[in-house]
Amino acid sequence: MEERTEIADLGEFGLIDHLTKNIELQNASSILGVGDDAAVIDHFGRQTVVTTDLLVEGVHFDLIYTPLKHLGYKSVVVNLSDIYAMNAVPTQIVISIGFSNRFSVEALDEFYEGVYAACSRYGVDLVGGDTSSSQKGFIISVTAIGEVSPDRFVKRSTAQKGDLLCVSGDLGAAYIGLLFLEREKKIFIESPGVQPDLEGEAYVIGRLLRPEARKDIVEFFAAQQIQPTSMLDISDGLSSEILHICKQSELGCVLYEDKIPVSEQTRNAAFKFEIDPTACALSGGEDYELVFTVKQEDYDKIVQHEGISVVGYMTEPEKGATIITKGGGKHALTAQGWNHMNK
Amino acid sequence: MEERTEIADLGEFGLIDHLTKNIELQNASSILGVGDDAAVIDHFGRQTVVTTDLLVEGVHFDLIYTPLKHLGYKSVVVNLSDIYAMNAVPTQIVISIGFSNRFSVEALDEFYEGVYAACSRYGVDLVGGDTSSSQKGFIISVTAIGEVSPDRFVKRSTAQKGDLLCVSGDLGAAYIGLLFLEREKKIFIESPGVQPDLEGEAYVIGRLLRPEARKDIVEFFAAQQIQPTSMLDISDGLSSEILHICKQSELGCVLYEDKIPVSEQTRNAAFKFEIDPTACALSGGEDYELVFTVKQEDYDKIVQHEGISVVGYMTEPEKGATIITKGGGKHALTAQGWNHMNK
Repeated sequence: MEERTEIADLGEFGLIDHLTKNIELQNASSILGVGDDAAVIDHFGRQTVVTTDLLVEGVHFDLIYTPLKHLGYKSVVVNLSDIYAMNAVPTQIVISIGFSNRFSVEALDEFYEGVYAACSRYGVDLVGGDTSSSQKGFIISVTAIGEVSPDRFVKRSTAQKGDLLCVSGDLGAAYIGLLFLEREKKIFIESPGVQPDLEGEAYVIGRLLRPEARKDIVEFFAAQQIQPTSMLDISDGLSSEILHICKQSELGCVLYEDKIPVSEQTRNAAFKFEIDPTACALSGGEDYELVFTVKQEDYDKIVQHEGISVVGYMTEPEKGATIITKGGGKHALTAQGWNHMNK
Repeated sequence: MEERTEIADLGEFGLIDHLTKNIELQNASSILGVGDDAAVIDHFGRQTVVTTDLLVEGVHFDLIYTPLKHLGYKSVVVNLSDIYAMNAVPTQIVISIGFSNRFSVEALDEFYEGVYAACSRYGVDLVGGDTSSSQKGFIISVTAIGEVSPDRFVKRSTAQKGDLLCVSGDLGAAYIGLLFLEREKKIFIESPGVQPDLEGEAYVIGRLLRPEARKDIVEFFAAQQIQPTSMLDISDGLSSEILHICKQSELGCVLYEDKIPVSEQTRNAAFKFEIDPTACALSGGEDYELVFTVKQEDYDKIVQHEGISVVGYMTEPEKGATIITKGGGKHALTAQGWNHMNK
């Protein structure tokens, strides 16, 4: 009998490790390859950063409640977010789309309106792409390219013991936004006449449908001459991203629940669904905020920025990754982010 | 009533024009954007070339007769071919795949075996990517990055009147290979017990399933100090590509049927299907040879290379794009390449 390992047994990150474990880089210009938010390529004075994302209808987005313009915007932003997470500045994108014949030119125009709005907002150029038909559903592939001064890019693997663990903005809103939209979709399917009740939830829904990348944070680092010691963007949930830093930097960490930034709107919305807002922040994902570590001596600079929260610190690896809850309990941090592979 | 334009009314190239007509490049480093084989980005001394392709099961490939290893190889090669078509040298790729749960890890390993074989053969590094599930079918997105000495990249729009029109290798084989495989698939579906009869057709089938990119031709140009005045790779058929040069360079051309290189194997195979080998070369596509123009003074250098055929020359635009048939007839050249958009 032929051997068969289920992909679900490996999980997404296990699969990527599996598929890329034998790579040996051949070009001197390939400074950093698979395993971070983006690759780094040397180009005689500046370094080029490259990242790519594949978005598939029914897996990453639901067109029942996702306006195409927002989808175009978000498709670009999630890639730019990966470039910023390298402490780099995005400069170009290429975008490929596949679509079935149910799409009209007007529909694609709407999608591209969002793409161009994001390009304009972030100052990046759309320089290429591909279009194709698809057998089913809408498929989007974006590759973003950015640049960074030599050796200023920030990896996941270079945090040090004692470094402060920080996050930008607030977390958990996108996941609550998804819960609202999924609830209204269910009601709509059961009773098509009923109008969606999303009043007062614009913030959390906006965070899901039209996220922004934290360009301003990377600009703040440059202005304040802060060099983060590690950084990622939060696509899978805070826990998952912090565990990447711990694993790749070979460290443990302490995370304080009461320091995790959650907006008032997110707390109120979580209350309606009777779920814990902290769980949304830890495991919800799609917030596209930055999680990063800085040296302790940068504390005074970091706290000047209202949009940055210090949420914990890095420890020796033996202590593991832990969260101190509001009640003072100490628990191991586990990743329960959205895992598209298990769907 | 809401306006609705069918995508089929625009065609693939019309759609791309439509979607990209308002782009204004913002970054000084974006030297060349949408509209060629690849984009060109300046990086302080060298220029970076970027291209991307989206391949969708059931649209671009059929897994019934496409070994996954060949598919991985070809997915990389078709992108490298676009980099070579810019007169550049590929250095890195990123690759994203989407797949349904019918795929096992072993199946993906086979695919990646082909990806790595192509990377190794062409000296490029796989530096990133993304994996995702898909609702249906296998989806592959590859972005290739290359470099070129400043201003040595070759566009489609810079051919001059009197330039020689040349192609590398031989044409039409991939299309005949496809006809064989489609025939055997039909027989297999009707009578699953019957063994495929592909004896003697290894060449044409190999050209379809496992094409190579013409790295050697670009190296020949460098060694001989030949700067082509325009160049494309042949993915949609010779006619379609020549018409791109004519349109973008605002020229006409004369193409001689008897000069179009077609292999003996392709002629024999075309005979079995009772189709014209010239039609396969003109409209078949997927050959991944290079079509390019050079100045007349480069003729002596070009003819030294056995793998290059001079097939015609560029004329003033008023004369249009014409083909002189073996019988001496003169016809307008029309594009009838594989058009995935009309399927």
